[in-house]
Amino acid sequence: MVSPAPARAGDEIGSIDTPALIVDLDALDFNIDAMAKHVRVSNMMLRPHAKTHKSVEIARRQFAAGAIGLCCQKVSEAEALLPSGVSDMLVSNHIVGAAKLDKLAELARKVRITTLTSDTAHVTELADAARRNGVIFEILIELDAGDARMGLGDESQLLPLAEAIAASPHLKLRGLQVYNGPFQHLRPQTERAAAAKEAGQRALCARIVLESAGLPCDLISGGGTGTYAEDTSVGAFTELQPGSYVFMDGDYARNFSADGSSYRPFRQSLFVLTRVLRAAAPDVVYVDAGVKALNLDSGMPTLHERPDLVFTKASDEQGRIETLPGGKTPALGELLHIVPSHCDPTVNQFDWMVAVRGGRVTDVWPVDARGCVL
Amino acid sequence: MVSPAPARAGDEIGSIDTPALIVDLDALDFNIDAMAKHVRVSNMMLRPHAKTHKSVEIARRQFAAGAIGLCCQKVSEAEALLPSGVSDMLVSNHIVGAAKLDKLAELARKVRITTLTSDTAHVTELADAARRNGVIFEILIELDAGDARMGLGDESQLLPLAEAIAASPHLKLRGLQVYNGPFQHLRPQTERAAAAKEAGQRALCARIVLESAGLPCDLISGGGTGTYAEDTSVGAFTELQPGSYVFMDGDYARNFSADGSSYRPFRQSLFVLTRVLRAAAPDVVYVDAGVKALNLDSGMPTLHERPDLVFTKASDEQGRIETLPGGKTPALGELLHIVPSHCDPTVNQFDWMVAVRGGRVTDVWPVDARGCVL
Repeated sequence: MVSPAPARAGDEIGSIDTPALIVDLDALDFNIDAMAKHVRVSNMMLRPHAKTHKSVEIARRQFAAGAIGLCCQKVSEAEALLPSGVSDMLVSNHIVGAAKLDKLAELARKVRITTLTSDTAHVTELADAARRNGVIFEILIELDAGDARMGLGDESQLLPLAEAIAASPHLKLRGLQVYNGPFQHLRPQTERAAAAKEAGQRALCARIVLESAGLPCDLISGGGTGTYAEDTSVGAFTELQPGSYVFMDGDYARNFSADGSSYRPFRQSLFVLTRVLRAAAPDVVYVDAGVKALNLDSGMPTLHERPDLVFTKASDEQGRIETLPGGKTPALGELLHIVPSHCDPTVNQFDWMVAVRGGRVTDVWPVDARGCVL
Repeated sequence: MVSPAPARAGDEIGSIDTPALIVDLDALDFNIDAMAKHVRVSNMMLRPHAKTHKSVEIARRQFAAGAIGLCCQKVSEAEALLPSGVSDMLVSNHIVGAAKLDKLAELARKVRITTLTSDTAHVTELADAARRNGVIFEILIELDAGDARMGLGDESQLLPLAEAIAASPHLKLRGLQVYNGPFQHLRPQTERAAAAKEAGQRALCARIVLESAGLPCDLISGGGTGTYAEDTSVGAFTELQPGSYVFMDGDYARNFSADGSSYRPFRQSLFVLTRVLRAAAPDVVYVDAGVKALNLDSGMPTLHERPDLVFTKASDEQGRIETLPGGKTPALGELLHIVPSHCDPTVNQFDWMVAVRGGRVTDVWPVDARGCVL
């Protein structure tokens, strides 16, 4: 059931079968170090989000750079990443339903597990599952970050919710989470900064409410790749949970170009290597990467270092690339590096990730938690 | 590396872990029989496209209903479906690059392999690979179906291309393919019919050109779920290659509603079962299926038999559902059946497909060719 790998260690890039997910190790290492350094000098902890990479190997590199644990979005994703040696896992989602909560309890016997809630009925379900399984779940209250999504929006409910958690012998209130995905992509940077500041402010107020009532709030987790610089300066978070910085993507690149800044704190390390299948017209080719190898929810992908080419359309297994006037149309069989528009769901399409350095394949890593939707 | 299965045979639907890909077997059987019957009474052959289901079990059901073989879009997909017992495989794509052509040759030693081309440089590559591997590749010339995509558009190139194929002792010209994906979704039906007729007409003209030159054209393959009724009446195709009819999806459903017709030749058999994680507002809930469980390239999914609910947005692992005025907002933990907007890439997100009949799980099938992008 696992699809064949597109390359072997030692292969040259030209002999990788396509389409293939490629990770440039120089850029990956740079990104892992850059974020680790930034968070360290800010006196905060780093808990990278593993939903981006779903990879044991990349998690290990993050730990080597000082990460204290991981975020996961799914229980099965967390399970698949245990071989990384992770000992402190935040399942940054609301885990609902007896089957899944029993699996979360199994995990809680192996590593420290923290998870989220924002609803008292859900607190009852969490407490029942912890009692039933003889474990303790550590809990963060998820605050609304301004988008009325999963977090608690009604501030008057904060104390009753926190007291319900604190009242259960099977739950342990640890603190707060506040995260807003769409905020990561607000442009220009001043808008992201304002949104991050507001989210941080909500967390600071909530902490005061909790601590005034004698309730614990030792951990405030949140932040992301798009707001990381603001997240460390806003004075609310004790730990940061960015994910995409390891790879970057077309949409995050647009954050920088919208600001007109030449500063690039992170490098593009993730590509989909694709091959030209058909020269359909003097200025149109079709390649072997379509919507089963890319993900278009953040728009069309771009072509790495080929500003003369535009990815205009995709069917299931083919992509259409057009040449701008004055550009050079690729030939039949030519390889191109696609920059995915959204890294997370693109990685989740592939069973394998090809690690390259200096023009050669150094490793072929499984995408360990691929398809772990449960 | 394979993610855990969401259910076991014998489970009730209510105990399936979510999100999960669900196949209603009554609807699936109905669809497989309906298409088989339609093609049989039209005196044509049926070669279903397996890129939709990627499933050995479903391929077997198609063979039992009379299918003569399968279409696949990728060499590795074809390989993964060999356990279905398939003996005649059309790889309906242009296979480019030595590594992949060598794998195609391996397949050609096991089953009858036909594949496509529309380019003389590609013919040389195909012939070299067949010679190098001591096999014969059977070839269809792909004709442009009116969208200037992978097919041959310049009619003056047809004979030189066909002669180049016929001249190689390692290739065998079998006929033609003409297929246009976007045509399947033209609305109203009269536009699909016109497009299908034009595509068929191109094939008929090309057959006359080939046969007048003494070249073979025994097989004309094409057609799809959106145009199947026209494809069998246009008088060009010897075989049909529809895929989506086994499952149907939101976009194909819109074909019918655009016509205002109450006739439904195929039933919706594919769903993503999802669970409410958060009642965010009186008319907003969040569920556990986002862009890693659905695919939004054909728009937002819909909710099965819940016209009061609208799926409005998705993040990686969560979907937002809003209740229309007068509707009933689902409760925390409630299960909902999502109708995917585009079945093929949605199936490709999942490692497992849960077969249900009469409210119970009868089987959990692997999605055998999931992720087979090579």
